[in-house]
Amino acid sequence: MALDKILKLYKEKIEFRLKTFLDEKISEAEKISDSSREIMQYIKEFNLRGGKRIRSVLIIMAYKSLGGKNENAIIDIAVSAELMQSFFLIHDDIIDDDDLRRGGPTMHRIYAEKYNSYDKPKKFGESMAIIAGDLLAALGNEIISKSDFDEEKKLKLLQKFNKVVKLTGYGEIIDILSGLKTNVTEQDISKMHKLKTAIYTIEGPLHMGAIAAGASDEQLKILSEYAIPLGMAFQLKDDILGLFGSEEKLGKPADSDIKEGKKTILILKAIENADKEQKEFIVSALGNKNITEKELIKLRQIIKETGSLPYSENLAEKLVKKAKDAIKNSDFEKHGKDFFLEIADYVIKRDY
Amino acid sequence: MALDKILKLYKEKIEFRLKTFLDEKISEAEKISDSSREIMQYIKEFNLRGGKRIRSVLIIMAYKSLGGKNENAIIDIAVSAELMQSFFLIHDDIIDDDDLRRGGPTMHRIYAEKYNSYDKPKKFGESMAIIAGDLLAALGNEIISKSDFDEEKKLKLLQKFNKVVKLTGYGEIIDILSGLKTNVTEQDISKMHKLKTAIYTIEGPLHMGAIAAGASDEQLKILSEYAIPLGMAFQLKDDILGLFGSEEKLGKPADSDIKEGKKTILILKAIENADKEQKEFIVSALGNKNITEKELIKLRQIIKETGSLPYSENLAEKLVKKAKDAIKNSDFEKHGKDFFLEIADYVIKRDY
Repeated sequence: MALDKILKLYKEKIEFRLKTFLDEKISEAEKISDSSREIMQYIKEFNLRGGKRIRSVLIIMAYKSLGGKNENAIIDIAVSAELMQSFFLIHDDIIDDDDLRRGGPTMHRIYAEKYNSYDKPKKFGESMAIIAGDLLAALGNEIISKSDFDEEKKLKLLQKFNKVVKLTGYGEIIDILSGLKTNVTEQDISKMHKLKTAIYTIEGPLHMGAIAAGASDEQLKILSEYAIPLGMAFQLKDDILGLFGSEEKLGKPADSDIKEGKKTILILKAIENADKEQKEFIVSALGNKNITEKELIKLRQIIKETGSLPYSENLAEKLVKKAKDAIKNSDFEKHGKDFFLEIADYVIKRDY
Repeated sequence: MALDKILKLYKEKIEFRLKTFLDEKISEAEKISDSSREIMQYIKEFNLRGGKRIRSVLIIMAYKSLGGKNENAIIDIAVSAELMQSFFLIHDDIIDDDDLRRGGPTMHRIYAEKYNSYDKPKKFGESMAIIAGDLLAALGNEIISKSDFDEEKKLKLLQKFNKVVKLTGYGEIIDILSGLKTNVTEQDISKMHKLKTAIYTIEGPLHMGAIAAGASDEQLKILSEYAIPLGMAFQLKDDILGLFGSEEKLGKPADSDIKEGKKTILILKAIENADKEQKEFIVSALGNKNITEKELIKLRQIIKETGSLPYSENLAEKLVKKAKDAIKNSDFEKHGKDFFLEIADYVIKRDY
């Protein structure tokens, strides 16, 4: 599949630039103090641990699809999205009290482990991770402001970057609150998915690439009409895979979403349609860290029986169709159209 | 004193703009969700609680001193510095686990108190405060990017803004580490004061104003030669007032620095010159939350006897002289020179 090749090619280019940029920042920081050098080194290591770089690739492909030619410059914009992603992950990991990320310790754990002889190493690690996230947000702004685009475009890109930070922050707040509230509605979840997935992962990157290519407001509007439903479908598919997908292909346990107590449309719809006994079973399974394989099979059964699985599947397909229609009716050139349509199909068909 | 009038005049203008800007952000946020509106309202309340607005005034005065005429535009840049200040305070308050700020609860306490029926309200409050700080950093970038300056200036201002965020972050790291280490050197403390006070409070704002006025690199260099020693002197004076100043005029208890265990040049120099008994006394007093009035008097006596008080006083005076010389030898116009010289005298003479 061509898309896989594109992903791999750009992943390498993005990671190379991420590395050279962060090496420059380490050189800068070591002139200031050992502790500045140290945090920049951890930031570099965290950024280079991997990830699919999907946001970056969307930025580059949107740029190229709309006629952009300056590959080095757009890679800097892609790197800003990776820095933003690490910034959010580091802060989210403090919030969620997570220990592992991208196959290594989270930023607050790195510091807590390194300085475990200090008084209150956990608190110390969290403090350093708050600052690490703040530094990454500043670095994201920095690389855009110094990229090889004209001043007008750079300002628009910076406005977009900070708007996405703001909206993703709002999404994170809804996420935190919905983890605490018992009466979460489908509307709450949809809003969160719109902010945290559709805007952050799909629309934001496509707009960044498009702005850099000099897209018109009309073209940005078409990309929104494509990106928002596609992002919502992406999330629905993610939730389905999280419960029905292959552990091996996903690279994470098939029960991790359930153990985390993730409130998804899939779960919410099942509760809505369930009888009393089924409902009680779902509620007790959600967030149960000791759920058995047998209970998981029963949960999947209920989600099918209540019509919740087909509901999410149909909704995702409808949304992808809506996304594709927006592109088909656009005046984008054929090369660009093909790419966006392929991405849309990938969202539905992927099994990882 | 003219400076007091200037401070008061601009404080009102800055706060007015801060209010209108954050009201716009509340309107934007309420279209997204109740929780977004809520956090923006808390952010507004926190920003309008007060503060001396010293960074803002330095921005505006540097701009005017260098011939800037667009008052509305420069006020937007001043507001960005206030947003940055709130961003740092909110994150620092989590790090220091402080309850009070600007006469009200810290951001994490606001949320912890409002949602005290939730599981783990302290953790919840800290999570929301991390996001509130992140939002404020994005808002600071936003208001600069939309201000009424030309694109080249706005980009330079954004680069400066994010550079200051980065350097202040490095200063904060040294601050955290020096609170944990026992072997803190005068060099560590000086480095921290350079980053957290001289650059953040003095040089950064002066450069922002100067960049907006179209200052040359040579002029920025002169401002650095003025700002860095002045900022160091400002900090030394702060530390002296923190131990020898009037409780009433400072608006904070005269023992608060000692109770906090703040490591200052004043304390370090006294330890360096103290005999064994004096040294033990200083070390035991530092961070002692139950220090008595009598012990405080003895501590002050030791700081005088060891020559540490005159050391800091002389150093501050030398630094202020150095700052003033940089301005005197500059080609700034008389109006500007007078302002910078007056500010420098104020730093030494102030008793609050």
